[in-house]
Amino acid sequence: MKRTMINRMKGAAFLFLLVFGQAYAQTDPLPSWNDGAAKKAIVEFVKTTTTKGSPNFVPPAERIAAFDQDGTLWVEHPVYSQIIYCLDRVGALVKEKPELKDREPFKTVLSGDREAIAKLSMKDLFEIVLATQSGMTVEQFSADVKKWLATAKDPRWKRPYTELTYRPMQEVLKYLRANGYRTYIATGGSTGFVRVYSEQVYGIPPEQVAGTTQPFKYGYDKDRRPILTREPKIALDNLDAGKIENFWLLYGRRPYAAFGNSSSDDQQMLEYVKAGSGARLSVLVMHDDATREYAYGPAQGLPDTKVGTLSQAMYDMAKKQGWTIISMKNDWKSIFSFDK
Amino acid sequence: MKRTMINRMKGAAFLFLLVFGQAYAQTDPLPSWNDGAAKKAIVEFVKTTTTKGSPNFVPPAERIAAFDQDGTLWVEHPVYSQIIYCLDRVGALVKEKPELKDREPFKTVLSGDREAIAKLSMKDLFEIVLATQSGMTVEQFSADVKKWLATAKDPRWKRPYTELTYRPMQEVLKYLRANGYRTYIATGGSTGFVRVYSEQVYGIPPEQVAGTTQPFKYGYDKDRRPILTREPKIALDNLDAGKIENFWLLYGRRPYAAFGNSSSDDQQMLEYVKAGSGARLSVLVMHDDATREYAYGPAQGLPDTKVGTLSQAMYDMAKKQGWTIISMKNDWKSIFSFDK
Repeated sequence: MKRTMINRMKGAAFLFLLVFGQAYAQTDPLPSWNDGAAKKAIVEFVKTTTTKGSPNFVPPAERIAAFDQDGTLWVEHPVYSQIIYCLDRVGALVKEKPELKDREPFKTVLSGDREAIAKLSMKDLFEIVLATQSGMTVEQFSADVKKWLATAKDPRWKRPYTELTYRPMQEVLKYLRANGYRTYIATGGSTGFVRVYSEQVYGIPPEQVAGTTQPFKYGYDKDRRPILTREPKIALDNLDAGKIENFWLLYGRRPYAAFGNSSSDDQQMLEYVKAGSGARLSVLVMHDDATREYAYGPAQGLPDTKVGTLSQAMYDMAKKQGWTIISMKNDWKSIFSFDK
Repeated sequence: MKRTMINRMKGAAFLFLLVFGQAYAQTDPLPSWNDGAAKKAIVEFVKTTTTKGSPNFVPPAERIAAFDQDGTLWVEHPVYSQIIYCLDRVGALVKEKPELKDREPFKTVLSGDREAIAKLSMKDLFEIVLATQSGMTVEQFSADVKKWLATAKDPRWKRPYTELTYRPMQEVLKYLRANGYRTYIATGGSTGFVRVYSEQVYGIPPEQVAGTTQPFKYGYDKDRRPILTREPKIALDNLDAGKIENFWLLYGRRPYAAFGNSSSDDQQMLEYVKAGSGARLSVLVMHDDATREYAYGPAQGLPDTKVGTLSQAMYDMAKKQGWTIISMKNDWKSIFSFDK
């Protein structure tokens, strides 16, 4: 053989190894998952809904997957990150409106008494959320959230909150998108808060984030430029059944897959998705790993916490309706992207 | 030259002609438009926002264009198609709820007295819309709208309403999409109504249709399957400033281009879009063609009608802020796809 011919063959072999070697390395789309029923159910769902000729084939335009955020995509315990943001904002709010200083629940927040703050009711927290997240333009609010996210840190992991996302769920997001699914967030949290980082953190663009939403008011700034200002009201309440009611309101489709963890917020969404025709995937994340994350929820005989609890009734519903249940302890090899 | 070489060159020439011939045939993306300021503004906007290296370049993820529907994408005169649908549904409604038979405004609708019906107030029509578009599941409502659209015809053109879309605007939708823009509908009409045909008629999927929206109620049918039922309320009012307030609420972005025609519904959206940074396109469709379509609106000294009127104030605003104004009479070679 001529020398050039040999070189060409070498080149071809190299290319072969490069292409097939990569393909081989990529055959496991969920490397942070242990083999088990949960991983199997996710992979089989994707295969059966995206393989041409499959009786469960779903046209690309209808491939929609909805993800709860807190407790499903990132850590929600012991307090939702967004609540911490709002508590941190109370100081600035009181500077603008000094009359709030001696009024509850703001007074308690300003006292810095951690135990008293931890005891605030959901109604109190809700009042704080509305008060701290309104009155500014949409751009001012986004800028303030961005600034906070850049410096605030979770006390346990000593990292920005945006790093506390679950690596196995990030793999699911990418795996679904690689198979033509569009991924949405359906959160009880504020839409405007999550949209600030959804693209960077989850690869989910703002128009695919549905959450609890304050209305905007059209007006003008001092230079007569039109502005949208956040109002201290609720336009769409994305808790409980609201999560799936509003998903239809916003997008006019029933998702083919949904992921959640909380009895109070995700039950109806998971039930409604599973009740659709063809192959549907409803997935429940169970927080049962006290060592690597947290363990809570009556379904496992664990403490009932303020946030994201899994009730026995929802666990039974999941079993009965054939939802996929994820045990963080058993199904996930690693929890965070910074895990070794 | 060897024969094979000549054949190869022939092949190359053929390919060249194929590719460039097609490109040449496609150089006018808006063939139903007369050359003029409006066409030029649209083409220049697309070029400057999609050409790499242009100071006004817009990343693909941010390329969003919003279109009002009635009077902008299809005929709205003399009555919105959706209102005709609701009036047609009053008979079926009264069968379900006989107590409405002797109550206004239902009584007038049932009388069949066209003159009296034409005189119903917006409040009356609104009551009819809510009454006829609620109580059923989302699937039942879609099926009913679909059935109606298949048989109902516009009395002037004797064609289904879905054929009364403007050919020049259909070209704009396709032209924008061919350049990486996602096209949205921002309508004062009901989201659930427009979503039934938006994909087929405009190539716009349901999740990109934002309109006035009734809320849904989660519940169960007789077989204990979860359902969403339309409620006789308003969750999002998409009229006036609501159109742009809700666009932000739903998608979290300011569109780069917006198209509208009505002072009461599109003014704030067009103003807000135009006020954004970089190159922005706000377009106003002027109904000034009594022969081929309709002519109405005080801005042109024409009759002020119930629907979609263009006020003098909005026309002045358009001129002052540099919006693009379309004269249907002068800018459009043809109006409908069925025109010769």
